[in-house]
Amino acid sequence: MKLSARNQLNGKITNVEKGAVMANVKIEITEPGVITAAITKESAEKLGLSEGDDVTAIIKSTEVIIGK
Amino acid sequence: MKLSARNQLNGKITNVEKGAVMANVKIEITEPGVITAAITKESAEKLGLSEGDDVTAIIKSTEVIIGK
Amino acid sequence: MKLSARNQLNGKITNVEKGAVMANVKIEITEPGVITAAITKESAEKLGLSEGDDVTAIIKSTEVIIGK
Amino acid sequence: MKLSARNQLNGKITNVEKGAVMANVKIEITEPGVITAAITKESAEKLGLSEGDDVTAIIKSTEVIIGK
Amino acid sequence: MKLSARNQLNGKITNVEKGAVMANVKIEITEPGVITAAITKESAEKLGLSEGDDVTAIIKSTEVIIGK
Amino acid sequence: MKLSARNQLNGKITNVEKGAVMANVKIEITEPGVITAAITKESAEKLGLSEGDDVTAIIKSTEVIIGK
Repeated sequence: MKLSARNQLNGKITNVEKGAVMANVKIEITEPGVITAAITKESAEKLGLSEGDDVTAIIKSTEVIIGK
Repeated sequence: MKLSARNQLNGKITNVEKGAVMANVKIEITEPGVITAAITKESAEKLGLSEGDDVTAIIKSTEVIIGK
Repeated sequence: MKLSARNQLNGKITNVEKGAVMANVKIEITEPGVITAAITKESAEKLGLSEGDDVTAIIKSTEVIIGK
Repeated sequence: MKLSARNQLNGKITNVEKGAVMANVKIEITEPGVITAAITKESAEKLGLSEGDDVTAIIKSTEVIIGK
Repeated sequence: MKLSARNQLNGKITNVEKGAVMANVKIEITEPGVITAAITKESAEKLGLSEGDDVTAIIKSTEVIIGK
Repeated sequence: MKLSARNQLNGKITNVEKGAVMANVKIEITEPGVITAAITKESAEKLGLSEGDDVTAIIKSTEVIIGK
């Protein structure tokens, strides 16, 4: 099955911590790759984003799905 | 300002494509780092996740925020 | 109140499991209905999505809101 | 590859509409199945959720990933 | 219908901008109220969050559902 | 660092409740401000959204990032 999700980073689990309902999983990414961000055009313009800019891709941990 | 979002990957923009309302931004990640995923304990157990497993961190592009 | 969220599936709760902060709720959907997915055009083209394709709609449990 | 995402509904694409950056895909779900929602315990208690309750699972279309 | 979503801010639409597939809607919030954030315990501890701290609640526009 | 996330509401923490993996943080918003919602054009049209409408911005607590 191929996924529509643009970002698929390969890595190795370094830690699994379980609570009653949720679990926190640490994955050491071994190949950097490319991240695609779909943001509003308004944001892209307000930040003046353009090729070559140094930026940070910020992702909340609740948004990450794990494939194994 | 420090952010609660666990995943902050540094990179360089390689492409910006704008539509009427949304924009698609490609970021080449230059340092791999560690990804934290908060998933249900049920998922962690059904997939049998444990240290050393090779996995993929999957993130939809609409979930990525850009910091510059 | 009508909601902008395109996906509203009716069902019956079959299980509620509570932790300290989060809870996991199982809902048996009784009417299938239609799912709308807003994805990047790039994804739609890379997967070659078109009418009649058999696909899977994948949704992380942290993205589901319950209305009662 | 198995996914941590709890909700995987099978269906058939009935429509694909493309814009400049985003695309809207309609999927007719053919098997209802079970939806898992991870919500705060506070919400579960404020709504008084318990087995047998008739509820609606609400999902924004930007949160849906397509697997094919 | 009552919703499990903890954050429901009342306001008035000041602008609607439509593209081919997506639309951008500006809502002027008229009553401030309280925002609930469910984050990882790890984040809460790394940021040293405690009562009385001045903070910013950050929400991507693709995560906002509109009720009318 | 400036963020692409359109919604950044300033406030003060009134409560922090920690579980094993997740934490629930209450933030009293002190300045109302404007919320931007990126929804499908289809939703904007089905709800007939236009300037001056009284609406509610609905946000699940798992979607809120905290900056401090």
